[in-house]
Amino acid sequence: MTEKLDGRFRTKGDLIIIGGAEEKEGSTDILEEVAKRAKKANGCLVIVTAATELPEEVADEYRKVFRDLGVKNIAAVDVRTREDGYDEARVEICRQASVIFFTGGDQLRITSQIGDTLIYRCMRDLYRDGGTIAGTSAGAAAMSGTMLISGPGNSSDGTSDLNMAPGLDLLQHAIIDTHFAERGRIGRLLAAVSQNPRNIGLGIDENTALVVERNESFRVMGSGAAYVVDASSVTFSSLSEETRSEDVLSMHDITLHVLGSGSRFDLMQRRPVMPKNPERLRA
Amino acid sequence: MTEKLDGRFRTKGDLIIIGGAEEKEGSTDILEEVAKRAKKANGCLVIVTAATELPEEVADEYRKVFRDLGVKNIAAVDVRTREDGYDEARVEICRQASVIFFTGGDQLRITSQIGDTLIYRCMRDLYRDGGTIAGTSAGAAAMSGTMLISGPGNSSDGTSDLNMAPGLDLLQHAIIDTHFAERGRIGRLLAAVSQNPRNIGLGIDENTALVVERNESFRVMGSGAAYVVDASSVTFSSLSEETRSEDVLSMHDITLHVLGSGSRFDLMQRRPVMPKNPERLRA
Repeated sequence: MTEKLDGRFRTKGDLIIIGGAEEKEGSTDILEEVAKRAKKANGCLVIVTAATELPEEVADEYRKVFRDLGVKNIAAVDVRTREDGYDEARVEICRQASVIFFTGGDQLRITSQIGDTLIYRCMRDLYRDGGTIAGTSAGAAAMSGTMLISGPGNSSDGTSDLNMAPGLDLLQHAIIDTHFAERGRIGRLLAAVSQNPRNIGLGIDENTALVVERNESFRVMGSGAAYVVDASSVTFSSLSEETRSEDVLSMHDITLHVLGSGSRFDLMQRRPVMPKNPERLRA
Repeated sequence: MTEKLDGRFRTKGDLIIIGGAEEKEGSTDILEEVAKRAKKANGCLVIVTAATELPEEVADEYRKVFRDLGVKNIAAVDVRTREDGYDEARVEICRQASVIFFTGGDQLRITSQIGDTLIYRCMRDLYRDGGTIAGTSAGAAAMSGTMLISGPGNSSDGTSDLNMAPGLDLLQHAIIDTHFAERGRIGRLLAAVSQNPRNIGLGIDENTALVVERNESFRVMGSGAAYVVDASSVTFSSLSEETRSEDVLSMHDITLHVLGSGSRFDLMQRRPVMPKNPERLRA
């Protein structure tokens, strides 16, 4: 259960994985964390609107928020086609980025249009070299190796209507789900991790984010909770039998961690970090 | 984690704890299980409508369902006041019962009107002597020692809006929640068990039931899942600090079992029972 994970790639970069519906006025802690990194690096904050069907509106909204948060250098890049992913003007903007921010929408639009293009390679280089990749909702879900596309909320329907696809693989050995408590998604995340307990399930509430540092650990920020579902401890899973996707799944001994703001989790050890001074969790 | 639980009372009786919205036409397995027990014992099936504000309509509906399922001897008892709980005619009906069935509504109406009355004592005697107490929704929630009254669904809000009260204590050392996946109640059940991990949390989906045998073990039936939340394994809980009810709760190492139809759970050992022949789970 506490085995060291091998094969994680080395990176100097960070991820900010947001569970959707982050505050854009008032308590904007999460977007401030994104803005802070752009300001510190003195580079460009690039808003990628590939996921949404309203690229201009969404870009304008985030441009305004980030400008209000003091970011001077902001650009928006839209990607509608695979060709766009190789377009020199767009690629050049991404090369200038110190932070790339993926908006919400449909995660399959991100991976199908950007996967393996020059923009994708820019993004990987940025992440490797110490930049920050941030994303909310679909932009968050797309970050894992295998990404959740769809599945029922508020249901125990197991694997019946669960759809997954290869993600951007920025966060390895994990499956990310967003809008987690709000849409009652524990059932679908359990179904997703049951299919291969090598991956931990990360369920992130709205207005809540994981700040992943160097592909090693994360801390939680925001007003909700992050749920870590670890099926490596499972002693019985009904999926080990002939799989019938319409069946409700049975699993014994899932390990579940619920992590509020300030909590930390060690991805290498697959363990939450015991707070040194628990009172500080409340700061 | 597998310590034997002491102080459980001995009973020859069973409980049928239904997560609400059980099928009343078509696949009526759960209500058939209730009906079967009334027919076998050749006694009266007593429908107690204390929880609902529509006692006549609800009684008529269940009376019809149980009649269609072959139960000959059916009575309905309504309890609006504490006095009703001591009313000789009502008490006499309950004395004839081999099965008592609590409808849905508001669990606080059940405990506040029936708690410690003669009807309550009849019910305890019936349960002790081998009868069956069944309940759906509010009628299910009321069966535990401490019962959940209200709390937010689809939320990680922790203990902030959680309300609990003393229940009928037919199922010891447990907290029961109903409509579980459908209303996204994992957050509130976690909050409830975090306050005292002596109790296991039992989250029951709609059209799903726990059949508890002799206060020792249960099996799951119906179309959804039962979730068992065991916080006795928890290594860190932010409630151990100064409690601020508005905070999101952090807990490490919760043990979670998801149990589909046919699964069994040993309440004495606090462990799911490993299926001897997993294929039979699917029968």
